[in-house]
Amino acid sequence: MKSMEKIVSLCKRRGFLFQSSEIYGGVQGFWDYGPLGVELKRNLKDAWWSDMIRGHNNLLVPEGAPSSYEMVGLDCTIIMHPQVWKNSGHYDLFHDHMVDCRESKKRYRFDQVRGRWCQRGETKVFVSTLAEAEHEADEVRRRAMKFFKLRAKNADELTVGDESLTLDRLDDTKSVLAPDAKSLDTLTDPREFNLMFKTTLGALGGEDDVTFLRPETAQGIFVNFKNVLDSSRVKVPFGIGQVGKSFRNEITPRNFTFRSREFEQMEIEFFCPPDQSQQWYRYWRDRRLAWYTELGLSSESLIMREHHTEELAHYSVGTADIEYAFPFLPPGEYGELEGIAHRGDFDLRSHMEGKLDPNSPEGQPMQVELNEHGKPKYRGSGKDLSYRDEVTNEKFVPHVIEPSAGADRGALAFLCEAYTEDQAPDDKGNMQTRTVMKLHPRLAPLKAAVFPLVKKDGMPEIAKEIYGNLKQHFNVFYDDKGAVGRRYRRQDEAGTPYCITVDGDSVSEGTVTIRDRDSLEQTRVKIDDVVSEITQRMS
Amino acid sequence: MKSMEKIVSLCKRRGFLFQSSEIYGGVQGFWDYGPLGVELKRNLKDAWWSDMIRGHNNLLVPEGAPSSYEMVGLDCTIIMHPQVWKNSGHYDLFHDHMVDCRESKKRYRFDQVRGRWCQRGETKVFVSTLAEAEHEADEVRRRAMKFFKLRAKNADELTVGDESLTLDRLDDTKSVLAPDAKSLDTLTDPREFNLMFKTTLGALGGEDDVTFLRPETAQGIFVNFKNVLDSSRVKVPFGIGQVGKSFRNEITPRNFTFRSREFEQMEIEFFCPPDQSQQWYRYWRDRRLAWYTELGLSSESLIMREHHTEELAHYSVGTADIEYAFPFLPPGEYGELEGIAHRGDFDLRSHMEGKLDPNSPEGQPMQVELNEHGKPKYRGSGKDLSYRDEVTNEKFVPHVIEPSAGADRGALAFLCEAYTEDQAPDDKGNMQTRTVMKLHPRLAPLKAAVFPLVKKDGMPEIAKEIYGNLKQHFNVFYDDKGAVGRRYRRQDEAGTPYCITVDGDSVSEGTVTIRDRDSLEQTRVKIDDVVSEITQRMS
Repeated sequence: MKSMEKIVSLCKRRGFLFQSSEIYGGVQGFWDYGPLGVELKRNLKDAWWSDMIRGHNNLLVPEGAPSSYEMVGLDCTIIMHPQVWKNSGHYDLFHDHMVDCRESKKRYRFDQVRGRWCQRGETKVFVSTLAEAEHEADEVRRRAMKFFKLRAKNADELTVGDESLTLDRLDDTKSVLAPDAKSLDTLTDPREFNLMFKTTLGALGGEDDVTFLRPETAQGIFVNFKNVLDSSRVKVPFGIGQVGKSFRNEITPRNFTFRSREFEQMEIEFFCPPDQSQQWYRYWRDRRLAWYTELGLSSESLIMREHHTEELAHYSVGTADIEYAFPFLPPGEYGELEGIAHRGDFDLRSHMEGKLDPNSPEGQPMQVELNEHGKPKYRGSGKDLSYRDEVTNEKFVPHVIEPSAGADRGALAFLCEAYTEDQAPDDKGNMQTRTVMKLHPRLAPLKAAVFPLVKKDGMPEIAKEIYGNLKQHFNVFYDDKGAVGRRYRRQDEAGTPYCITVDGDSVSEGTVTIRDRDSLEQTRVKIDDVVSEITQRMS
Repeated sequence: MKSMEKIVSLCKRRGFLFQSSEIYGGVQGFWDYGPLGVELKRNLKDAWWSDMIRGHNNLLVPEGAPSSYEMVGLDCTIIMHPQVWKNSGHYDLFHDHMVDCRESKKRYRFDQVRGRWCQRGETKVFVSTLAEAEHEADEVRRRAMKFFKLRAKNADELTVGDESLTLDRLDDTKSVLAPDAKSLDTLTDPREFNLMFKTTLGALGGEDDVTFLRPETAQGIFVNFKNVLDSSRVKVPFGIGQVGKSFRNEITPRNFTFRSREFEQMEIEFFCPPDQSQQWYRYWRDRRLAWYTELGLSSESLIMREHHTEELAHYSVGTADIEYAFPFLPPGEYGELEGIAHRGDFDLRSHMEGKLDPNSPEGQPMQVELNEHGKPKYRGSGKDLSYRDEVTNEKFVPHVIEPSAGADRGALAFLCEAYTEDQAPDDKGNMQTRTVMKLHPRLAPLKAAVFPLVKKDGMPEIAKEIYGNLKQHFNVFYDDKGAVGRRYRRQDEAGTPYCITVDGDSVSEGTVTIRDRDSLEQTRVKIDDVVSEITQRMS
């Protein structure tokens, strides 16, 4: 049975993921990629870069696209000018509401505190828990039982409400039992908390030098829009892609790498004429979903969740999330892998004119507010970020489609999908449960492993030569320790698609076996054909 | 003539590098990579990863190495536990001394303020300037002339000292003329300034939540040493490599991307038995120098600068810098590309036992200081970071050789080296000065460009097919705009090694010309052979 616990344990044991600064007790919401993990994540990011940016054919019209288009890359800094975040809206709007528990000293994201009304006789208590808690209803019942037992007997007369409510739908917060408290009424009122990490530039440390670690890579693309246009002669429609770290000071990081404070994004900002933006939105939504299935996520575990019209910003004709059925979620629930948003001309205009008022139907710039030094808090760059079409001579601010993917969430989804337990024969031919990571060959950290059956009779020499030849093309592992069955198992857990074993026949007949990780099929090929055979299977 | 000004201008014009947040006036010390720059930097980092980590053959003994060795990768977070920096020494020791000028309000790195004594009659003035300022001696003379002219005539009687001095070698600081001041004695006393960017974890924002953006990737490797050992069965000697961003709050960022506040490193920590560390130090020093010349830096522009014995820390048997003759430096001066340091067991022991006292000859742990909360400021992790050799059963803390390279400095050196002006014929056969970026094919952002000579007679169809075929293997550009000579020039500036032109003979005879960027030689090859021809030339 696949479970998050087993996946986390395998990730640590085999060197996919470690908690950051683990020897010092770790830091919540930060994760390091170990020797296998760094290769997996590199492969994922490289696949994205190759499929979306570098390998894109500018001259073909892809299926479902209104026309051909160009793609270029960019790599911007994590620390940018603070004005970027004032105009993007992050300075004012990128916050969560948090509540503190006076008893447990724990802090919760307000929107994640859920619960149910429980009643015993006259006493009514709203027993709360955290959203995404496993078996939420059971958790509420357990805590309610405990609470009433602490106070009096007759816990059996307890009734638990059916409907799961959020805290903000309650009038009477006095009777709330906080998720980790033993007494009622321990939660503070919700407060705003900006999710950007703050830091200070230079040694002076004045207010003007305060800046932020980027909470998304997207803004670096918008502020470079004109630089890219001027330097690379791209024509609308075109896209700019970027891979890089972003930071969000999450109040409650959790679910392994799913919600971390430091994470990596793979974002595209696609610029198109306003009247084509609906078609491009549909194109990117479908293209990005297909990418995940091409790399091995099963379509049963993926959903495309279109936001309702009322959820959309005034400038947007659509936003869709690609979501995956992560094993830490209850059945039927999904977690976001990627969002594809139609952003209209909102971002480019904000950086031209100053932050736009999100509540104004025409997207008017915000009234100029002054900061404590009497300087305007929001001032646009004043630069012209519009585009002139060479053929029609029409000038417009392009609309933007933004497919924004999380590299760590992607890696986690592929790890979860890959985790499999099946039955395979051991060295004595007895069927045993094996754990195997069925990663797509493009994503697998190691593409092949080479084993000499025994460390003598000329086998190591042949195996080393095969290893050396393969190593010029792929990441390959050499293993001569222990029984071959155990070596297979180790590679199964690492997700290595092909194992090549050098045995007696290799010495006498010049052939080796190639064992397929998933089908367990073993085929004999000539030693000279190993590189071409693996190359062919890989493509 | 090669000059920094021309290189910077080309980098901006062609989309290699942009100033970060340029539309908001930029941020000092932060640079974005444009469409060509991001591909160059990716190629450089991929070459390092492939040559040092992924493609390393564990079974061969490389020339100059004492034995074979293993290499694995890692990818750690930028934000780590604050205790990491206390034990590494960065919290206390990673600072510069800065001085402020009360007149100009400018801030200088103390060690960069240099100057000469100037005398006129009885008046003696120490005229200072910034180190690395071009034509330093002239600058001092110019400023001294100006200063004495402001005060009286007879400036001609001025004498300027021969010896360039640093500020800390002067007793009488009252007579110092600061680099941007008009009066004497405007500099403050030097103050310490920690170079780590500070930020705060979580919403509470207490002193215990203060942490730092890593100033080097190395520490992430040390604190994961045990995790890597336990999960990947590597044996000493082995190395762990990492590529990633680091941050230093430089007081005076300058020289384009050479000294920036956000930069990317490519670091190896190589763990070996203490008695082999001298041999491994020499191996890595030579191996890393060779890597730069393999990728195209001329050995005349590179030096290996061994630190003097008295410059070394007590634990180190050697440190060497690989330095490059950047065009912004005066002739005969070099700037650091990479440092190869013998670090002994200093780092692993610090993370076991607590920060070691750098002044203690035996490397004793620091006396435990308490912070303002009465908690020990330096406490080791208490984890055993030693290694037990399976064969000899000997237990030891490995010694470390650290080849630490700057990816941005590398990219800048390759850009500077590549910049060339030579003579080439234009469309009419007249010789013209051309600017060409002679980048190594592995590093070139685009590997080839495909041009149909004219946009008719079947040429675009053939060109598009060649482009499509090449695009499956390489980053390729398609250009059908303007005279072919101008298209060549554009690719020369982008550093594209090969241009493929489709002409009348392509239609009639099925051949195209391939033009070599450096030799300007044009050879005809069959259309069907283009992919294999480019593949062969690339390897």
